[in-house]
Amino acid sequence: MLLQPLLAALAARFPPERLFTDPVDCYAYAYDNSKRFHPPAAVVFPLNQDEVQAIVALCNEYQVPLTPRGRGTGTAGGSTPEQGGVALSLERMNKIIKIDPANRMAVVEPGVLNQDLQNAIKEHGFFWPPDPSSAPYCTIGGNIATCAAGPHAVKYGVTRDHVLGLKAITGNGEAIKTGCNTTKGVVGYDLTRLIIGSEGTLAIVTEATLKLTPLPHATAGITAQFKDTTSCAHAIAAIMAQPFVPSALEFLDNGALNLIRNRHAGMLPEAARAFLMIEVDGAETELPPAVAAIIKACQIEGLIDASPAHDTQALWAARKALSPLLRDIAPKKINEDIAVPVSRLPELLQGLEALSARYQIANVNFGHAGNGNIHVNLLVNPDNPEEMARAEQCLDEVFSLVLGLDGTLSGEHGVGSAKRPYVDREIDAPTIKLMKKIKTTFDSRNILNPGKLFPEKN
Amino acid sequence: MLLQPLLAALAARFPPERLFTDPVDCYAYAYDNSKRFHPPAAVVFPLNQDEVQAIVALCNEYQVPLTPRGRGTGTAGGSTPEQGGVALSLERMNKIIKIDPANRMAVVEPGVLNQDLQNAIKEHGFFWPPDPSSAPYCTIGGNIATCAAGPHAVKYGVTRDHVLGLKAITGNGEAIKTGCNTTKGVVGYDLTRLIIGSEGTLAIVTEATLKLTPLPHATAGITAQFKDTTSCAHAIAAIMAQPFVPSALEFLDNGALNLIRNRHAGMLPEAARAFLMIEVDGAETELPPAVAAIIKACQIEGLIDASPAHDTQALWAARKALSPLLRDIAPKKINEDIAVPVSRLPELLQGLEALSARYQIANVNFGHAGNGNIHVNLLVNPDNPEEMARAEQCLDEVFSLVLGLDGTLSGEHGVGSAKRPYVDREIDAPTIKLMKKIKTTFDSRNILNPGKLFPEKN
Repeated sequence: MLLQPLLAALAARFPPERLFTDPVDCYAYAYDNSKRFHPPAAVVFPLNQDEVQAIVALCNEYQVPLTPRGRGTGTAGGSTPEQGGVALSLERMNKIIKIDPANRMAVVEPGVLNQDLQNAIKEHGFFWPPDPSSAPYCTIGGNIATCAAGPHAVKYGVTRDHVLGLKAITGNGEAIKTGCNTTKGVVGYDLTRLIIGSEGTLAIVTEATLKLTPLPHATAGITAQFKDTTSCAHAIAAIMAQPFVPSALEFLDNGALNLIRNRHAGMLPEAARAFLMIEVDGAETELPPAVAAIIKACQIEGLIDASPAHDTQALWAARKALSPLLRDIAPKKINEDIAVPVSRLPELLQGLEALSARYQIANVNFGHAGNGNIHVNLLVNPDNPEEMARAEQCLDEVFSLVLGLDGTLSGEHGVGSAKRPYVDREIDAPTIKLMKKIKTTFDSRNILNPGKLFPEKN
Repeated sequence: MLLQPLLAALAARFPPERLFTDPVDCYAYAYDNSKRFHPPAAVVFPLNQDEVQAIVALCNEYQVPLTPRGRGTGTAGGSTPEQGGVALSLERMNKIIKIDPANRMAVVEPGVLNQDLQNAIKEHGFFWPPDPSSAPYCTIGGNIATCAAGPHAVKYGVTRDHVLGLKAITGNGEAIKTGCNTTKGVVGYDLTRLIIGSEGTLAIVTEATLKLTPLPHATAGITAQFKDTTSCAHAIAAIMAQPFVPSALEFLDNGALNLIRNRHAGMLPEAARAFLMIEVDGAETELPPAVAAIIKACQIEGLIDASPAHDTQALWAARKALSPLLRDIAPKKINEDIAVPVSRLPELLQGLEALSARYQIANVNFGHAGNGNIHVNLLVNPDNPEEMARAEQCLDEVFSLVLGLDGTLSGEHGVGSAKRPYVDREIDAPTIKLMKKIKTTFDSRNILNPGKLFPEKN
């Protein structure tokens, strides 16, 4: 690693306001929402694809790690400069290049904030479905890097379903263009989706052509309360087995409910031990039959009440505040986002309760139940080594439980460094080996976000 | 190429009813719907993944090309054994392994026919959206190899949107497992979609986990007739710019209409020079506003009539019969399936008319207009070299027109060998180079379907 000559070369090309080397300035680029801290030696702010390409070329030349980042809202450590070197912040490449309503398409730079895009396309009658809780301050580039999702994925799918094409600079420094400008296209390999979710290890996205979705005409809410998580889990499976697909189907366990009760007295019924927040959308006339069908699917032994909700805004605000509320009480909580096939949710939630009891680790579960995607939060104190040891064992068993139920270790957060040690429990050795070869194909000197995504020992 | 030792090794492992070497038996495995003819030296019929792996290992050992195929319904030559060697037919791996309605999922072997899957899941209230015209006799494996689509892609997307995971044997002979059993998953690179559309050049799919979609409650049809293609093209763009997404939006030009008139006298109005067959689906109550909105979008200068259609079955049967009807009059027609952004359709269709006139080549256009995906048919006689030379020049200009309109050379048929000479006009050199490196990563000895998909000179 020839760091000093690289920094000199960067300084020759970039003005000081676009190249930070003072550790104080670099501090804010050392972490993401995983709370891992790895300060870079420098942060560089390119303004266009040519500058990105020049930076990649220099990092190759001097063999210095280069970690691209959006706004650092990821929860798995994907954007921390773990091996030092240079952080490449895309936050100043934030232009919406084109909105093309006739073709339901937008072209953006990677640093555009998700919410800024939503605001700009709303007046044309569209939205872009990926909607992580961090939408107001996460970037489209970060959404692409992690294949981000959110509550509406149950009906609308995830980032990979809403990108038509990309421009990018590979780790080897080549400018490539993937995909096309049409909703159908089969010329060449699908590099677009290979790059989506690759967490900045293959290429740096410099422009994205996004597919837009018409805003629904209307939405309606339903809430359902249950005596226990098991009955609630059965209701989730029943809702997803009938044909009206909800546009959101969020689950909250009793721990999550208590967090909200603590903040918003009276909002939630006392008897509920599990709760569903359900949204349907579509044409006005479509909503009543959808609401009726979903309420019918909730009629499970253990249901307290399922009814149309009128003030859904307050409920959604409470749901969105859950992660911050959890951080208030357990700043170093262990946050997982496993997913299982929805029919296995009863077994998953029962298993989580059993593990929580056995390891005496407080556990709050909530999330995107329509995709079987549950955020499992182990509320631990990292200053208590004995508790941390129990938590680690507990987490290990959580993953065994999930994989035993045909699930996945991460529904939407990604691997980064947080889930790296467990990847080879989900993906078999020949497949990991092939993925590593693909990494080398894009990035032969292992410059881009080195060490991320793959288990260390392989 | 050590063909004889390979055939001996295959004969030692496979009984004669699963290993054809007689040229008469091999004949049917020499072609697909592109009418290219490349007989294999042998056809082998594996029954499971282990047998596929053994065949790939032997072909690597003896350096003999191996071309996987479903039922040979592709139109681009993707499944013809162009360099000889062995054809691997997956038609006997045709088990539906699991239908899991609670998780909206099915697990199938690659040789299952698309229609057989549809029939099996229909009773559970589901369908699998890819619906090429060849559905009754094309395989799911072939659909995956080409990223197949069809009329309903305008609302439901294409094959890559409806596959959760794959088992496959790479060209190097490794058994890999991609994706997961949940509708969200971000652990590792998206190899599922890298393999989808790769036309058997990277890996042979041995099992696919498919995402199922609830059958719509009801459908309604609309037909719209226009005085000319330009007004019709403007109506298509207007339909796609309003929020009710049709479940099918098929365009027929006057040439296509005449083919149907010739067969079904009286079915189509005489004055129409361009025609739209439109379908909407959803809840019963959703259809009337959708039909009204689409008829409203058709109110363009040049419209003759747009109205709800009552007997849609006969119309759809006529639409499905177009390709065979065309073959009756021009058995060696040149069939392209270009796509452009829908707002560019007026320019495309005007341009096609101008080229047809300039080169005096009869041209019939129809197709999936909601995706901007038009099947362009040049009705040529291959025994007339002068006409063929004109057709070749015309085709060259068709592609220039399409690329100039930000389009793609193939919306759903794929590259195979038919579109190979034009690929590097759409994909730039660094991106093709990267795709070729990925091919080598999966298949270092270039055993799998060699020569397909990439331009020869690169």
